[in-house]
Amino acid sequence: MRARSAGRSLGAGGRRMADAVLFEFLHTEMVAELWAHDPDSGPGGQNMSLSVLEGMGFRVGQALGERLSRETLAYREELDILKFLCKDLWMAVFQKQMDSLRTNHQGTYVLQDNSFPLLIRMASGLQYLEEAPKFLAFTCGLLRGTLCTLGVKSLVTASVAALPACKFQVVIQKS
Amino acid sequence: MRARSAGRSLGAGGRRMADAVLFEFLHTEMVAELWAHDPDSGPGGQNMSLSVLEGMGFRVGQALGERLSRETLAYREELDILKFLCKDLWMAVFQKQMDSLRTNHQGTYVLQDNSFPLLIRMASGLQYLEEAPKFLAFTCGLLRGTLCTLGVKSLVTASVAALPACKFQVVIQKS
Repeated sequence: MRARSAGRSLGAGGRRMADAVLFEFLHTEMVAELWAHDPDSGPGGQNMSLSVLEGMGFRVGQALGERLSRETLAYREELDILKFLCKDLWMAVFQKQMDSLRTNHQGTYVLQDNSFPLLIRMASGLQYLEEAPKFLAFTCGLLRGTLCTLGVKSLVTASVAALPACKFQVVIQKS
Repeated sequence: MRARSAGRSLGAGGRRMADAVLFEFLHTEMVAELWAHDPDSGPGGQNMSLSVLEGMGFRVGQALGERLSRETLAYREELDILKFLCKDLWMAVFQKQMDSLRTNHQGTYVLQDNSFPLLIRMASGLQYLEEAPKFLAFTCGLLRGTLCTLGVKSLVTASVAALPACKFQVVIQKS
């Protein structure tokens, strides 16, 4: 017997919020799953998991960069590409824009998010700072992968001084 | 030096499409990552990975169910809860609604998606059918987890007869 379709549904606002949390919940599960197999296996094991996460982020970034940039004009200048990450990529993944973008105009960019969603759930005590890298590796890969698709080879690292703010440093690799 | 904010950005349509593909890309990476550590280790290994994926889906479903249902009226009837999955949960995760919901009115529900997004990328040949379970396990868990948060204990299985259509069977467990 066929049931009628439901009469109630979430509004667009509710769906957008669900989109945002879906990514965060999935990310949390990926981190937990990787660390479950790799409990306290010292710096080597930790680095392995970070590298796996970074690689997953890279491939998602590549695919996403391809999809997002199809809808936009071609970006010719490096700075335009970095702005695209701060605005469009961040909006697609985190439903917000990056708080600031700085550059030395020599191929190094610092992208700052004053309240990075993947760090917000962590308590803000200093004792949790050492846990931060595992919540940043995927996103470093995501930035590197998106840049790669847009034709820019880069190194991306992240640092946290005061939770939940963090900085991503992008260093462009000139070939 | 502070760079100015970008002047161009994706429209709402572009962002919604990006939301949809973000989940799909992440899911693809999770499946690939789990199977990379567990290459051809026979039925036992395969079942282990399926169970890990189902568990991840369950926890994401629990969290998502909690978040989504806060915004809606309390659901009192079982059928309303199943309609919520078909409409709101599917919309939040897959940006579409389930195609049909059938029930025997004795605690068994069959939810059919005629074009399940996580199967669309697979070629539609019969020879790929045996690969289908690994693209369904997470979503079975997602349904079970969301139902759990809404107070309904269930068993959820999936079957595919013709790609990319699939059916999720939900059997309510009366306590």
